[in-house]
Amino acid sequence: MYKNRKTEPALAPIGVFDSGVGGLTVVREIMRQTPSERIVYFGDTARVPYGSKSKNTILRYSRQIIRFLRTQNVKAIVVACNTASALALPDIQKELDIPIIGVVQPGAKVAAETTRQKKVGIIGTEATVNSAIYTHMIQAVDPDIQVISRACPLFTPLVEEGWLKDPVTEQVAARYLDTFKESDIDTLILGCTHYPLLRSLIGRLMGNSVQLVNPAYETASALKNLIEQEDLCNPIPPQLQNDMYQFYVSDAADKFKQFANSILPYDIETTKQINIEEY
Amino acid sequence: MYKNRKTEPALAPIGVFDSGVGGLTVVREIMRQTPSERIVYFGDTARVPYGSKSKNTILRYSRQIIRFLRTQNVKAIVVACNTASALALPDIQKELDIPIIGVVQPGAKVAAETTRQKKVGIIGTEATVNSAIYTHMIQAVDPDIQVISRACPLFTPLVEEGWLKDPVTEQVAARYLDTFKESDIDTLILGCTHYPLLRSLIGRLMGNSVQLVNPAYETASALKNLIEQEDLCNPIPPQLQNDMYQFYVSDAADKFKQFANSILPYDIETTKQINIEEY
Repeated sequence: MYKNRKTEPALAPIGVFDSGVGGLTVVREIMRQTPSERIVYFGDTARVPYGSKSKNTILRYSRQIIRFLRTQNVKAIVVACNTASALALPDIQKELDIPIIGVVQPGAKVAAETTRQKKVGIIGTEATVNSAIYTHMIQAVDPDIQVISRACPLFTPLVEEGWLKDPVTEQVAARYLDTFKESDIDTLILGCTHYPLLRSLIGRLMGNSVQLVNPAYETASALKNLIEQEDLCNPIPPQLQNDMYQFYVSDAADKFKQFANSILPYDIETTKQINIEEY
Repeated sequence: MYKNRKTEPALAPIGVFDSGVGGLTVVREIMRQTPSERIVYFGDTARVPYGSKSKNTILRYSRQIIRFLRTQNVKAIVVACNTASALALPDIQKELDIPIIGVVQPGAKVAAETTRQKKVGIIGTEATVNSAIYTHMIQAVDPDIQVISRACPLFTPLVEEGWLKDPVTEQVAARYLDTFKESDIDTLILGCTHYPLLRSLIGRLMGNSVQLVNPAYETASALKNLIEQEDLCNPIPPQLQNDMYQFYVSDAADKFKQFANSILPYDIETTKQINIEEY
């Protein structure tokens, strides 16, 4: 399947990208579940957010980012952005000769396996929800599962404002999640990388009977399986964290570092800025 | 001052640009105050918003957009975005041989003339507020004026969600505007193109003693004066609106048209999409 696999050494890093900082919730899970792997992360902070943009634009951006990640000799790529996974991955997958996975399929698969009432809810960006890709992937597992979705465009700005535990955020969440009140779902996918940061609020509003699925966690598990199957695991244990993990952004990095240091288990010392439009 | 002015016919359009849809509030004022002028508008919907990005990125984007607008033979340019006016205009102004104005200076000038207590408030994006350019321009008129500013990053997503008259928006506004409670300002600049859409809410919260300054209105007045002074007024009265006004975007145009048709005095029929990264 992956023609050049044998020429990509297992020592090479995993490439991970996102529209901005949100994908760091996926990076955190990859660090936990595959601690021997090197990571090159790219956050498209100059063009963030993707969630309100069109498929063609997101596809063009994703292709540029993958061209950049290939210059870093990555052995596999994780699309750590729900919107790019939903809109760009199906096309990009066909164009690559290294393994690539997104966050949508692992999340959809676990949700389909989790639901007992056969009713799954999804929250995400407008672009993700309108793509209906979660619905397609869940119904590919079991066509009888009913899927109810709701775009929550204010969640990301609220998280970035830092209002995680705030009466305003609670009211916004209550209004968005009201969509699921009558529908009797028992499983809800947090279909945007920022939403796990609102996990306790969303869990409280949905109640104990609803299981929350965090695609970041499921994606890191799927990546672990994938590199094991493909014989791509790094045999060398980690040395210094700052050598193992490289962070690139397309816009100045102060805010990125701040957010990263609040999410990751260690403090990032340097981030590098590149002009992604040149790729 | 403007070397090539005589080769730019008065019949040519005015170029107007913004990070997205917000600049249409400026376009609306230009249509009202100079109804004979043709307009070419560019909204950078593929890279919106600018308000959380760095000076270098906004400068690069603004230069690309100006290169595009020059291909449309514009006779003058209006930077209808507070963030780009604050961060890019000072550099760009030196590079151009046609007149260019932004929204910051006209707003700052009127605010400095309006305040009696010599205390002016400013609300805007993080980038605009951090640039402190409103403060510099107000104090250039009168160094004794005290300027108090507050970034309001949730206002734009709330406006784009359509929650204009909403208890959530009211609470967010109350919290942001609380900054001005003790400061006794008598003048407040709406320093982001989306904010005039929250004008009645902001006015109610600030009370009758505070004058709101809308830079969109002041910028259209300044443009009118400028083209009169420079002998650039279009002598031909308008024909069909769709010929007079051209709308370009960098990302697919559905949402743009929807928003435009809610703001402008007539319905836009077509918008054209270009790849701004090629300029």
